[in-house]
Amino acid sequence: MSIVHECQNQKHFQNLELYFLLSDKRFLQDGVPEIVSESTHVSFYAHLSKNVAGIGVHHPIVFDTVRYNDGNAYNKVDGEFTAKVPGTYFFIWTISARDRTYMETELVVNGIVFGHVIGDAAQHDDWGVATGFVIVRLNVNDTVWIRSGPVNNGQLTGTGYGTTSFGGYLLY
Amino acid sequence: MSIVHECQNQKHFQNLELYFLLSDKRFLQDGVPEIVSESTHVSFYAHLSKNVAGIGVHHPIVFDTVRYNDGNAYNKVDGEFTAKVPGTYFFIWTISARDRTYMETELVVNGIVFGHVIGDAAQHDDWGVATGFVIVRLNVNDTVWIRSGPVNNGQLTGTGYGTTSFGGYLLY
Amino acid sequence: MSIVHECQNQKHFQNLELYFLLSDKRFLQDGVPEIVSESTHVSFYAHLSKNVAGIGVHHPIVFDTVRYNDGNAYNKVDGEFTAKVPGTYFFIWTISARDRTYMETELVVNGIVFGHVIGDAAQHDDWGVATGFVIVRLNVNDTVWIRSGPVNNGQLTGTGYGTTSFGGYLLY
Repeated sequence: MSIVHECQNQKHFQNLELYFLLSDKRFLQDGVPEIVSESTHVSFYAHLSKNVAGIGVHHPIVFDTVRYNDGNAYNKVDGEFTAKVPGTYFFIWTISARDRTYMETELVVNGIVFGHVIGDAAQHDDWGVATGFVIVRLNVNDTVWIRSGPVNNGQLTGTGYGTTSFGGYLLY
Repeated sequence: MSIVHECQNQKHFQNLELYFLLSDKRFLQDGVPEIVSESTHVSFYAHLSKNVAGIGVHHPIVFDTVRYNDGNAYNKVDGEFTAKVPGTYFFIWTISARDRTYMETELVVNGIVFGHVIGDAAQHDDWGVATGFVIVRLNVNDTVWIRSGPVNNGQLTGTGYGTTSFGGYLLY
Repeated sequence: MSIVHECQNQKHFQNLELYFLLSDKRFLQDGVPEIVSESTHVSFYAHLSKNVAGIGVHHPIVFDTVRYNDGNAYNKVDGEFTAKVPGTYFFIWTISARDRTYMETELVVNGIVFGHVIGDAAQHDDWGVATGFVIVRLNVNDTVWIRSGPVNNGQLTGTGYGTTSFGGYLLY
């Protein structure tokens, strides 16, 4: 008798599926997988919808337009990603600085810098566009956000769709 | 009796494996998983092999050299990615504009802009290189491609291996 | 009888789990999955901790600060990633060239160029920051690293956290 035909009850498949998808796999004593989250599908993509001025140092950059937010971990009000599922994540962000502006940015995890990159057009009349990325292990409730670094002139270019953007997803 | 020993027929394992790998999991009424694709392994990486001139606005950028195309969803003739598997995808592309050229680019899904980025060396004698990314949910037959945006001087730099490139993969 | 209740022995679940996670799925003749690695969780993120000068052509770039190295495939001594698990991988790297410097970089797999990108600030007083990526199928013991290309002035900017960085992970 095959597994496929033996398990015609859909619920059993769902339980088994849940088990395999869980990144933090644990068992209750009776062998039934413990549920640590409703879903392990986590990914988001957000961008800035406008130019912003008057940004100081270590100021959160709020990517206000959410294009995708599976798992609902990214918050467009404060720009923070909060892990609901423990695991290893990939984050990526792009910063655009238009002519004669510059913006150093940092990706921080619970306030600790894990990556930084600068969009630098301080001295010339072309856009300076830069992309940074980070891979990091997060626990539940760890927060990740992008903030301005010490080297910036307070301006950030966000016109257009996605030119200054922030995204990420759970790897496993 | 364990599952492993009970299922010595490899075919049963393959069926079960297929079920778990399918991103859009559905059941037929008898509990046997419905097959929506031969494979859920989708990833591609292509780049431009030469410099291109005379590009207008909203012109598709055809990354003509395919380095990897698992699932065969990217088409190097027209530069389009067509989803065969429904799911959430990550796309990334890099645009190089050599000295005194500039090229705004847009990632479009079924003609709708989801991201954009500019390689900008219009006013100076250095390459302007920029990378953009998008995370998006696709249905079967949705198409994704990169096109020129309104701000460009018709030139795109593709010499070298991968300097102007397009890639993506199925997340889940 | 359901699979879930039938398999209360955790070891059976682990065997089955291992089977599903293995990217190169093979069976021994008795139907028990062959173990090709202790883990298929592979991801790393490393960056340069300092500015470097005197880099020639085709010189490995050693990202000396490892922030994450799950699976221990990246070696910070020589800058090489060595695949322990066969599969399809995504690699990404960012190169920063500060004012009046420039550095072409190549991602090579077993010495073959798969991608390249230039951080170019040769002629102007702003940082040139560029990001490249590659998707490639690797066999066990294949090596991947970043090296300088022919077009560079021997300098690479690595101060700060992650501004010149290299990362990657196993897709499947």
